[in-house]
Amino acid sequence: MAFLSKINWRIILQILGFLLIIEGLFMFTGIPFSLYYCEYKCLSLLYGGLITVTTGGVVWFVNRNASRIIGKREGYIIVSVAWVIISLFGTLPYLISGAISNFTDAFFETISGFTTTGASILTDIEIMPKGLLFWRAMTHWIGGMGIIVLSVAILPLLGIGGMQLFVAEMPGITPDKLHPRITQTAKRLWVIYLFFTALETALLMLGGLDLFDSLCHAFATMATGGFSTKNASIAEFSPYLQYVIIFFMLMAGTNFTLHYLGLHGKVREIWKNEEYRYYIFFTLGFALLLGMVLYIEGNLSAEKSIRDALFQVVSIVTTTGFVTSDYLGWPGQSWIFLFLLMFIGGSAGSTGGGIKIARQILLLKNSALEFKRMIHPQAVIPVRFNGKAVSPEIIHLVMAFFLFYVLIFFAGTFIMTLMGLNFDTAIGATIATLGNIGPGIGGVGPIENYAFLPGAAKWLSSFLMLLGRLELFTVIILFSPSFWRK
Amino acid sequence: MAFLSKINWRIILQILGFLLIIEGLFMFTGIPFSLYYCEYKCLSLLYGGLITVTTGGVVWFVNRNASRIIGKREGYIIVSVAWVIISLFGTLPYLISGAISNFTDAFFETISGFTTTGASILTDIEIMPKGLLFWRAMTHWIGGMGIIVLSVAILPLLGIGGMQLFVAEMPGITPDKLHPRITQTAKRLWVIYLFFTALETALLMLGGLDLFDSLCHAFATMATGGFSTKNASIAEFSPYLQYVIIFFMLMAGTNFTLHYLGLHGKVREIWKNEEYRYYIFFTLGFALLLGMVLYIEGNLSAEKSIRDALFQVVSIVTTTGFVTSDYLGWPGQSWIFLFLLMFIGGSAGSTGGGIKIARQILLLKNSALEFKRMIHPQAVIPVRFNGKAVSPEIIHLVMAFFLFYVLIFFAGTFIMTLMGLNFDTAIGATIATLGNIGPGIGGVGPIENYAFLPGAAKWLSSFLMLLGRLELFTVIILFSPSFWRK
Repeated sequence: MAFLSKINWRIILQILGFLLIIEGLFMFTGIPFSLYYCEYKCLSLLYGGLITVTTGGVVWFVNRNASRIIGKREGYIIVSVAWVIISLFGTLPYLISGAISNFTDAFFETISGFTTTGASILTDIEIMPKGLLFWRAMTHWIGGMGIIVLSVAILPLLGIGGMQLFVAEMPGITPDKLHPRITQTAKRLWVIYLFFTALETALLMLGGLDLFDSLCHAFATMATGGFSTKNASIAEFSPYLQYVIIFFMLMAGTNFTLHYLGLHGKVREIWKNEEYRYYIFFTLGFALLLGMVLYIEGNLSAEKSIRDALFQVVSIVTTTGFVTSDYLGWPGQSWIFLFLLMFIGGSAGSTGGGIKIARQILLLKNSALEFKRMIHPQAVIPVRFNGKAVSPEIIHLVMAFFLFYVLIFFAGTFIMTLMGLNFDTAIGATIATLGNIGPGIGGVGPIENYAFLPGAAKWLSSFLMLLGRLELFTVIILFSPSFWRK
Repeated sequence: MAFLSKINWRIILQILGFLLIIEGLFMFTGIPFSLYYCEYKCLSLLYGGLITVTTGGVVWFVNRNASRIIGKREGYIIVSVAWVIISLFGTLPYLISGAISNFTDAFFETISGFTTTGASILTDIEIMPKGLLFWRAMTHWIGGMGIIVLSVAILPLLGIGGMQLFVAEMPGITPDKLHPRITQTAKRLWVIYLFFTALETALLMLGGLDLFDSLCHAFATMATGGFSTKNASIAEFSPYLQYVIIFFMLMAGTNFTLHYLGLHGKVREIWKNEEYRYYIFFTLGFALLLGMVLYIEGNLSAEKSIRDALFQVVSIVTTTGFVTSDYLGWPGQSWIFLFLLMFIGGSAGSTGGGIKIARQILLLKNSALEFKRMIHPQAVIPVRFNGKAVSPEIIHLVMAFFLFYVLIFFAGTFIMTLMGLNFDTAIGATIATLGNIGPGIGGVGPIENYAFLPGAAKWLSSFLMLLGRLELFTVIILFSPSFWRK
């Protein structure tokens, strides 16, 4: 658990090798679709998978006898580096097929997938080979798994107690430890993830989508990703399909340990979870409010107004980023409301990104208590969350997180403008990537994409996605000199 | 120092009455200018002053025998209410003369003066009677005095130990207590304030300005206010005059206790002050950088480029808000750099507003230490400021301040858009008033003004100015239920 005096690089390589093998195997899963749709480019998935599996295999094999001693430092390195390496190899199918010929674009699209962001550089999605679109959706699904499961389920298989890696993942606030044995927990959450994905796929097929589109959208929903196989995202789908996706976005933005409780019939315990209550009430409340604005100010039917508002609010709060309507064109300036929602984020322990609702609650509660503390300077007044007092250290960390988030947002926006983006686009691109949402405002709005960004801005966006996905600290700590000091 | 079980309203009224008397007397000071410039509207200052002095006198007289016991709660109430009441009476000269006939506008202009913001609703400043322009500049000067002195010098004259009120002012971080006796301190700082004002007036007159314009600009500079008597603000002034104003803006944005040290020849001690070092280095560094951009990208001379950049950077960092150049039209998008500077603020203990440099330093230092703390979770690693360890409680308060600032900024922007302002204008109006700067971005940019804002937005802006000027907590605590509970 402590810091080792020397970094155990061999175990890091061993694990990365193992993860690459897994990734390569996942690449193969797209081949059936390539064959079914008679695509001449189906071989790119095969080649990509082979290269990835082979590389991973060699790295794993060379380091198979690595010392099993692993510390916090190794944990941080593995988590950050894994996301980058996996994204690097994930570009292979795009590059080999030539469907995305530019490396910057391919990397952007891939890390956008694995970080479950869903920002895209594709200007015409529908001309892409189906096999590649499947891989694109799969990057979401793997990323979502990674967030809730990989680090606590796969890594322990290698003999690593997963808990210290879970510390590196910094899920912040998931105080409800489901089960003492984290590996078991991970497997259970994985089953839930699979179950929801299968259920959504079935329900989408019932609504008339084919297996391919259903799977791709289920992958993107459950990972709160946002890649669609359609140029119009979800806008052309039937109301039934849109409602199905709304429901599953809500599920994906929920703490997965609550699903576990739910499947065991402990519904009352779910409702005791403060974050969940705020999540449901505020999301539905905001959607209703915005729906009313759309109905009164626009010229849509009541049902369509509510549906559009509900879809967009849920999509943004859960950081999915699917689109059914060009919200930048909504009446008044109601898009600004959606823009503000981009700063909230999903629940802790969900696949959603961003600041997270639990942190927001702690911050707001603590802020309200500041005045009480000023009035009673002698009294110790702790923040209460889920009925328990939260330690000042946790509050400090949450405030520090918020601070970093705001600083990175400002710095990101500024650097984006230096790269030539206009003010609104820079703001939009920064929050939409840092928050792992996908569509933003300005030039990267709901009906736009990231293709036109200069190369440097694409790399910055990629970095912001990684930062946001790994809860900032996991990545930034690698840039801290004291991290590398003996 | 403690909270009394019952609020001592009579002492509050007594002090407010006293402050009104002072304000009324200050109004009379503009009359000589009205007479000299032969204005038929000179009587408005006389009438306004008489009403204010009389009201204040009556309120004071009725409550002259109030119990002298005063607690923290009374302190908070006096500070917040005084700024509002004084602004209310400060509108009288505008309203009586009819020069500003609308009450909302008059209040906006007056509180903008007293909070040393300098945001204006006047579309043509030069047609205003000189006597009123003098009063307008005077509101700045009184406000600036109020910030550094009134609460620690005038109130003790009424027999109140000023220190508990100084707590209410929350200057945050002024650890260097100049002198054990706060009243003495206040008087000394007042002398410094007077001295700088007189010196600037003299230097401006040397540069060819008449006494009236010199005084008005000196008032606005030393208070970091920003009201000019010219429609073009400082743009038409000679380079010499602009450099004089740059110098005094820098002085006004400095912690006044450092001036005291400087006047006693303790220059080395000034340089030991961390906030001062950052303030000078970063302000000049940013100005140089921006000057180079202006020179390379624009078509101005090197001197003019540097001067424009220096003027605007100093004006915004010190939260003065004077303008020599339409920075929104600067090459590239360099205005975004100035926009970000709007979030910094002057030094603690200066007349500048905003978050303040000392807070920024503490936040950044603390952020850098977070990683060290993660790596060594057992060690206690305090932030060091001016060579001393800062307590976790202070760090917590600084973080809480920052959090409130950001939340108010977001909320303010959002409400502004609901009132019909476009996105950029809403952002600009919110930060420029909350930070007590004056000119912002968008529709309230450097060559624009606040006249076109809807009434509600003017009231919101007024409230934001008050919030920012009184360091947020002083005002917000009055809205906390526990404040009013026995």
